[in-house]
Amino acid sequence: MTVQKTTPALYEEYKAKMQKIADVRNAMSVLGWDQETYLPPAGAAFRGQQLTTLSTIAHELFTEPALGGLLQELGQREDLDAVQKKNVALSLEDYEKNRKYPAAFVAELSTATNVAYHAWIKSRKENRFETFEPSLNRMVALKKQEADILGYKDHPYDALLNEYEKGADVEMLDKIFSDVKTSLLPLLQEIAQQPVPDKKFLHLHYPKDLQWQFGIDMLKAMGYDLNAGRQDVSEHPFTTSFSPQDVRVTTRIDEQDLGNMTWSCIHEGGHALYEQGLPTEQYGLPCGEAASLGIHESQSRLWENNVGRSLTFWQHHYGRLQSLFRHNLLAIPISDFYRAINLVQPSLIRTEADELTYHFHVMIRYEIEKGLIGGALETKDLRDIWNRYYSDYLQVKVPDDVRGVLQDIHWSHGSFGYFPTYSLGSFYAAQFFATAKKQVSSLENDIASGQYDRLLQWLREQIHVHGRFYTSNELCERVTGEKLEFRHFLDYAKEKFGGIYGLKY
Amino acid sequence: MTVQKTTPALYEEYKAKMQKIADVRNAMSVLGWDQETYLPPAGAAFRGQQLTTLSTIAHELFTEPALGGLLQELGQREDLDAVQKKNVALSLEDYEKNRKYPAAFVAELSTATNVAYHAWIKSRKENRFETFEPSLNRMVALKKQEADILGYKDHPYDALLNEYEKGADVEMLDKIFSDVKTSLLPLLQEIAQQPVPDKKFLHLHYPKDLQWQFGIDMLKAMGYDLNAGRQDVSEHPFTTSFSPQDVRVTTRIDEQDLGNMTWSCIHEGGHALYEQGLPTEQYGLPCGEAASLGIHESQSRLWENNVGRSLTFWQHHYGRLQSLFRHNLLAIPISDFYRAINLVQPSLIRTEADELTYHFHVMIRYEIEKGLIGGALETKDLRDIWNRYYSDYLQVKVPDDVRGVLQDIHWSHGSFGYFPTYSLGSFYAAQFFATAKKQVSSLENDIASGQYDRLLQWLREQIHVHGRFYTSNELCERVTGEKLEFRHFLDYAKEKFGGIYGLKY
Repeated sequence: MTVQKTTPALYEEYKAKMQKIADVRNAMSVLGWDQETYLPPAGAAFRGQQLTTLSTIAHELFTEPALGGLLQELGQREDLDAVQKKNVALSLEDYEKNRKYPAAFVAELSTATNVAYHAWIKSRKENRFETFEPSLNRMVALKKQEADILGYKDHPYDALLNEYEKGADVEMLDKIFSDVKTSLLPLLQEIAQQPVPDKKFLHLHYPKDLQWQFGIDMLKAMGYDLNAGRQDVSEHPFTTSFSPQDVRVTTRIDEQDLGNMTWSCIHEGGHALYEQGLPTEQYGLPCGEAASLGIHESQSRLWENNVGRSLTFWQHHYGRLQSLFRHNLLAIPISDFYRAINLVQPSLIRTEADELTYHFHVMIRYEIEKGLIGGALETKDLRDIWNRYYSDYLQVKVPDDVRGVLQDIHWSHGSFGYFPTYSLGSFYAAQFFATAKKQVSSLENDIASGQYDRLLQWLREQIHVHGRFYTSNELCERVTGEKLEFRHFLDYAKEKFGGIYGLKY
Repeated sequence: MTVQKTTPALYEEYKAKMQKIADVRNAMSVLGWDQETYLPPAGAAFRGQQLTTLSTIAHELFTEPALGGLLQELGQREDLDAVQKKNVALSLEDYEKNRKYPAAFVAELSTATNVAYHAWIKSRKENRFETFEPSLNRMVALKKQEADILGYKDHPYDALLNEYEKGADVEMLDKIFSDVKTSLLPLLQEIAQQPVPDKKFLHLHYPKDLQWQFGIDMLKAMGYDLNAGRQDVSEHPFTTSFSPQDVRVTTRIDEQDLGNMTWSCIHEGGHALYEQGLPTEQYGLPCGEAASLGIHESQSRLWENNVGRSLTFWQHHYGRLQSLFRHNLLAIPISDFYRAINLVQPSLIRTEADELTYHFHVMIRYEIEKGLIGGALETKDLRDIWNRYYSDYLQVKVPDDVRGVLQDIHWSHGSFGYFPTYSLGSFYAAQFFATAKKQVSSLENDIASGQYDRLLQWLREQIHVHGRFYTSNELCERVTGEKLEFRHFLDYAKEKFGGIYGLKY
């Protein structure tokens, strides 16, 4: 006779297993953070090996049949509260997805990714897409295979999208990017008719230490808790979390470009506020994780754009900025500064794009990925397709591969389905911000006076605290009363850029 | 019919298992390094949990019966080379030792250590030994139990010593500390009759940035490879290694004490040169690890004292130091500087002690540990014993517990048997250095001109490259032609301090 374990005892067992896995994954994050910030050059090879080992251990722990049995048993228990039920359901889902991958496939993908990454590096050095193409082709084949392993209803790309943004699919994205085309393109064309604001003064010499100080000040003002976080310097800014009590951001400082540090600090700060706001008691469990990449990006974009590129924001901060950089900014009125930081201008490089043209960069990648995974496009034609899209949508001529089809690292990592979350993030941000404006009556005054605690409180309660309890779509509906609607971004864009460029809307 | 695996295949299997364990342990070291350098305060609790998880995983991997079987099988193979044989033998020894610990004992020790650590902190705050005494008593009981688990021939303390310094035992240490008493004490007494050199100028204001720069310069001069290492700031200076390609040191800078940074950089630099000199191809295997704590300490002490506190060393560096700190040092002749940095004076705090009195601090702890573990002493009498020893050996009166019996953290960690390695390190250092002087004919000239590459090369070939292939004693005999002999330290001390204090020897 076996004695049945009580539900609380089973749940504790499950929690302990999940926290053990989280500890290993967070250790990986520490090693990853160190790799980007402080690792001495010669240490890279052994660090790679150490990360692989931890990743293998985490995978082994998360695919243990004992965990599966426990999850199945818990899934049948009725005496769990709603959050516990959701945790168990999501863990079971994650577990079953993980178990779908044959070991041979995982090894193959890992090898191919490594090859593709190095081919991409080489390809960029040579400025020649052909060097990367065979590896990319291999990655696409493997990703198609992955879509089959994971399963999908309509389009194989849906399976990949789902890894980054649960519930998002080609149908939803086609609709959204069709809105982008039909309504954002006319706005861009109108803006293109207007005189181009001057932004040369943003590229004078801005000393490193003063930029650093201003960045830290902004992070603090936003409510980023430096007692449970820190900022360091890395080549590419990022946010990483080892627990809600240790969430770190990095920044990059370009002494010839004030914008580089400024909006990267605010952007990463937005990500970090989300991570710091996740419920500590759910550490290691799905409800202690961010809802999705799109929702994560909504938090960074909301702070970066809706707040950090608004005139109201700078009404509070501009004086301080001017006093830090007197020689560069004292003669520049805030209105000129505001126009300069919101300059809209088609360009070649996604990461340097403005708030509006950015989404055409994402759309191009989305169209390409969908085509590759769906079989409508082939990698050998990619340079031509890329260059044609850039000419069609952004009216820019791609001069070489490094500034074209080779510019992003993502495909070499096999991250197909990731790009759309960048746009989704901005669109969620606009929708959330519109709701916040209605629900937090003091919002405009708060921002004008550098007080963000009520906004942060609202984001915490509406979004952060739920973790993965709701999918992005559910969360969006719950917070804003409707599913994701592009028109919120469009309204925001028209009001803001209409104002800046003197357009009539 | 089972097909027998070839020895190379078996050895590769063993190596892979050991490297996996090493990867986990090195990940722990990264997390530990981060904890001491950059961890935000609120992150401490989850970090503790993450470290515990990794430690459990490493322990599980290292006690797997499959590993035991593999080691036993390999132990019977004849077709291994000498290094491979040694690796297998040492791993088997480590494995069997690990398996001796009952899980319940490990858990009990871990809990008791945690309690003892916090009691020690509290006790120090209250400046009251009684608060710590019950926990210390518990630790001693557990450590006696550990000695029984591990087994020993003559004295239970031998079992604990063996964990830090294989082969060292009470018989050896009694002899050495008896030499310390009979021959170092008279030297101290003679020095005490001499006028006390002035060292006030070492405690003027020394700006942090300039000290940092000087420290980095010294590390570079010593041959510390910053391409495979880095320096950061921590409360207590330490060296940690994530592979021979990533060996990090930390330092502490006190603007009122030039010595603090200076000799801690050289000391940690010595440890780091050892780690950087370990054979990379033996990563994860015993022959890729340091021989023992005593040998490790010999490397730091050799650089710190035999090199870094010599007049010859400063003949090269003092000019640069003077130019960095003109106001403080320009009027100080090198002879006064040399006397000041070698001031001998009994004091209360071990970590601040000079090169000679230091060993009385260690001896006192050794006598106490031996007594506690052997049963001749009880923790309740410890304050009295401590204070009596300090009065007897060092003629200092202990004013309170914080400056007395509570000063070291080690016992709260359960590190009984660790202290003697500090003295062994200095004694090995003197013996190695005496040999180096004979074998590296240019040594004095090299040091006088700031060239340490030949010394480093000698240390690499004689010591570093062997890893754990030889025990400390074997290594010492191999390098110097004899077992550890205290007289080398005594000769060094008499020549140096006889010169400084004008004594006749």
